[in-house]
Amino acid sequence: MQFIACQLSSPFTNMRIDIISVLPELMDSPFKTSILKRAMEKGLAEVHFHNIRDWSVGKHRQIDDEPYGGGAGMIMMVEPLDKCITELKSQRQYDEIIYLTPDGETLNQKLANTLSIQKNLIFLCGHYKGIDQRVRDLHITKEISIGDYVLTGGELAACVLADSVIRLLPGVLNDEQSALTDSFQDNLLSYPIYTRPETYKGLSVPKILLSGNFAAIEDWQYDEAVRITKERRPDLLD
Amino acid sequence: MQFIACQLSSPFTNMRIDIISVLPELMDSPFKTSILKRAMEKGLAEVHFHNIRDWSVGKHRQIDDEPYGGGAGMIMMVEPLDKCITELKSQRQYDEIIYLTPDGETLNQKLANTLSIQKNLIFLCGHYKGIDQRVRDLHITKEISIGDYVLTGGELAACVLADSVIRLLPGVLNDEQSALTDSFQDNLLSYPIYTRPETYKGLSVPKILLSGNFAAIEDWQYDEAVRITKERRPDLLD
Repeated sequence: MQFIACQLSSPFTNMRIDIISVLPELMDSPFKTSILKRAMEKGLAEVHFHNIRDWSVGKHRQIDDEPYGGGAGMIMMVEPLDKCITELKSQRQYDEIIYLTPDGETLNQKLANTLSIQKNLIFLCGHYKGIDQRVRDLHITKEISIGDYVLTGGELAACVLADSVIRLLPGVLNDEQSALTDSFQDNLLSYPIYTRPETYKGLSVPKILLSGNFAAIEDWQYDEAVRITKERRPDLLD
Repeated sequence: MQFIACQLSSPFTNMRIDIISVLPELMDSPFKTSILKRAMEKGLAEVHFHNIRDWSVGKHRQIDDEPYGGGAGMIMMVEPLDKCITELKSQRQYDEIIYLTPDGETLNQKLANTLSIQKNLIFLCGHYKGIDQRVRDLHITKEISIGDYVLTGGELAACVLADSVIRLLPGVLNDEQSALTDSFQDNLLSYPIYTRPETYKGLSVPKILLSGNFAAIEDWQYDEAVRITKERRPDLLD
């Protein structure tokens, strides 16, 4: 298994994530549940939500408008986003200001590892057809896509990115070994896993797993991981 | 722009998604907000949550156990999952029984398009170190990964998959054109987009977009989309 130096050697620091969104309520339950909740309760991570409407402009409290040049869909205006990000930047130093967009760098485990040693991050969630290009020009330091598909907005992508990063912070998982034996940490998919009962509806656990011979079991698990990765994702072995 | 035949030619049908999870409350807010909420209110999609604990076994209401062969993390047991899925299958025909796992086929827009013409889908969310291999052998017809990174559980992946699919159902988006001009539908990233004001902090909208010459604007947008895709994601052009 590959040693993930960046994670284990990082000094213990809290992470702060500021999420800017037109729909922060969408992200309510993911951050109130499971690992994300535990990380926040333990003080290992703090997540702050900012509703773009609080920086809306004009008497109509506008945050979006039609695109120059025509076309379907609305564009998030530069001014509310600029004001929000400028205010946050005046309060602390951010390591990255990340725009979640299908046009960005594709998230993978290596990128999650890298972000997990940062201290202050901003996640900007796109919505509608996207944000005015000038927000990118003025503030965005990194653009990340969680995959080659389109979502209604960047909110779920922000949850996914936060989860992938926060679970790597030292102390968040109960068993620190757990994250290191995950899929992708060694560029291999998982070997088949089994738990009780030994036989279910005629399907039995492979005998080797019951042998008590842990060296042989580890060999089998490694061989199976390589076999499955070759079969399903040969690109990971390149 | 490429014509998405599978979407536009599909007969109008409601979609039903059954999501099986150990932590359904994590998915509460995403399905109560935005497009997913609207799709359900309009009767275009229905989503049912099933808590695996309702099919737990033994007097300890167990749903997970230690892996055969040792190692960190708990495994979701075969019996509760088998019972839950078997009950659902006895009630209706499912087009796909999908396990959300980092080991699966990587979700992309083409796969989302394909799933959007199905009628009944089960999404099984993995948790802990994953599910007993025999659940896969007995029931799973498709395994999907939303990307090459590890999440705490399959719940956020299920939200992402549901969002990517449900927004494609006819009638869900306000402006049907919107989904067709999204990133990836033509294998191109988006061109830069702008809205008012014309100049902000010295940054101006490209003159062409103010020209009113829509043929020239379309050419510029296409050229920019190709340029950005070449720069950031040449693999999409292969």
